[in-house]
Amino acid sequence: MIALEEKNLQGYNQKLLDFLKGEHKSQEVLDINPRGQLPAFKHGNNILNESYAACLYLEEQFKSQGTRLIPMAAPEQALTYQRMFEGVPFMDKIANVIYYEWKFPEGERHDSSLKRHREALTAELKLWEGYLEKLGAGSYLAGKNFTLADVVVFPCIAYVFRFGLSEKNYPRLAGYYGLLKERPSVKTSWPKNWLETPQAEDKLKDI
Amino acid sequence: MIALEEKNLQGYNQKLLDFLKGEHKSQEVLDINPRGQLPAFKHGNNILNESYAACLYLEEQFKSQGTRLIPMAAPEQALTYQRMFEGVPFMDKIANVIYYEWKFPEGERHDSSLKRHREALTAELKLWEGYLEKLGAGSYLAGKNFTLADVVVFPCIAYVFRFGLSEKNYPRLAGYYGLLKERPSVKTSWPKNWLETPQAEDKLKDI
Repeated sequence: MIALEEKNLQGYNQKLLDFLKGEHKSQEVLDINPRGQLPAFKHGNNILNESYAACLYLEEQFKSQGTRLIPMAAPEQALTYQRMFEGVPFMDKIANVIYYEWKFPEGERHDSSLKRHREALTAELKLWEGYLEKLGAGSYLAGKNFTLADVVVFPCIAYVFRFGLSEKNYPRLAGYYGLLKERPSVKTSWPKNWLETPQAEDKLKDI
Repeated sequence: MIALEEKNLQGYNQKLLDFLKGEHKSQEVLDINPRGQLPAFKHGNNILNESYAACLYLEEQFKSQGTRLIPMAAPEQALTYQRMFEGVPFMDKIANVIYYEWKFPEGERHDSSLKRHREALTAELKLWEGYLEKLGAGSYLAGKNFTLADVVVFPCIAYVFRFGLSEKNYPRLAGYYGLLKERPSVKTSWPKNWLETPQAEDKLKDI
């Protein structure tokens, strides 16, 4: 949705589904996405169900419309792709901690493994804190301009603060979060239920 | 390396490192990649350490050179991106089974979790078998042409057969594997130690 907003594609159809009610396994979703997962996205007859795939497709199909999300210059382009794909292990490490109980059934959980996952997430967060520190205040993830790296990685940052990450311990991430939160594409696509309950849990408080 | 070959970038420097000897944690790698992971890739001063990122960068920077890896037409382009990013959960599910002992320390392993991982990989393999069946014999992953989806997903297919997947149980995947194995970019980049020991283990024999 952030990519759709940035590419000035307002007016798209959308439907918010409830995971807890299993709505992502409905026939309506399965017709588009045999994996029964979200997002499920269709543009004309073209189906893209992986968020990174949909974002790259939208940028490529609407290159000169709205925000340019992949910079042309090689150094900025390289950094955009690099940070974008570091978003995959980042999200994975967040999920291992936040959704630990959901990912691992009772009887397969171990203090040692949760501890390891928390340490891995801490190391990951420090890496991103360092990236932002190096770029300086007011920077986006790949430099002076907002790019596809921000589109795909910002949701990770929003997640960690929603789950109680300390703004004091991660001042650069907190600054970046504050900057992006005010961006129109981010404001418009902000999840409704996040507005109602701004903080979910404090699982990441001490991380 | 497949992407480099397809884009006619022969003559690139390369160095094969040994994970077991911890060579991916050497200072030489850490200087390029603070994560201490492979691949670690540098083009001029531009660093790309995530394989998907490096592939997209190479395609974008050398668009009209060698094989066109992202189709221009929207339907083929959408399918290329879609299959490409389905490669992420595919590789993840392979690793959960093949590297189970490596990923989960002793004392945290459970028959129930290995069984679940094996079932998830089986479902994943059936999905890809179905994709190829729908496209017909001799197809690549996104249709009639070889694309970036093949570059990034073929290694998954090569892995599963190296670990003993039955060609009889997955005839379309076997056909695709046979087709790609003969492609010059794939032959040239074939791992040396895979030539010496064509099959690693038979962990996936009954999957």
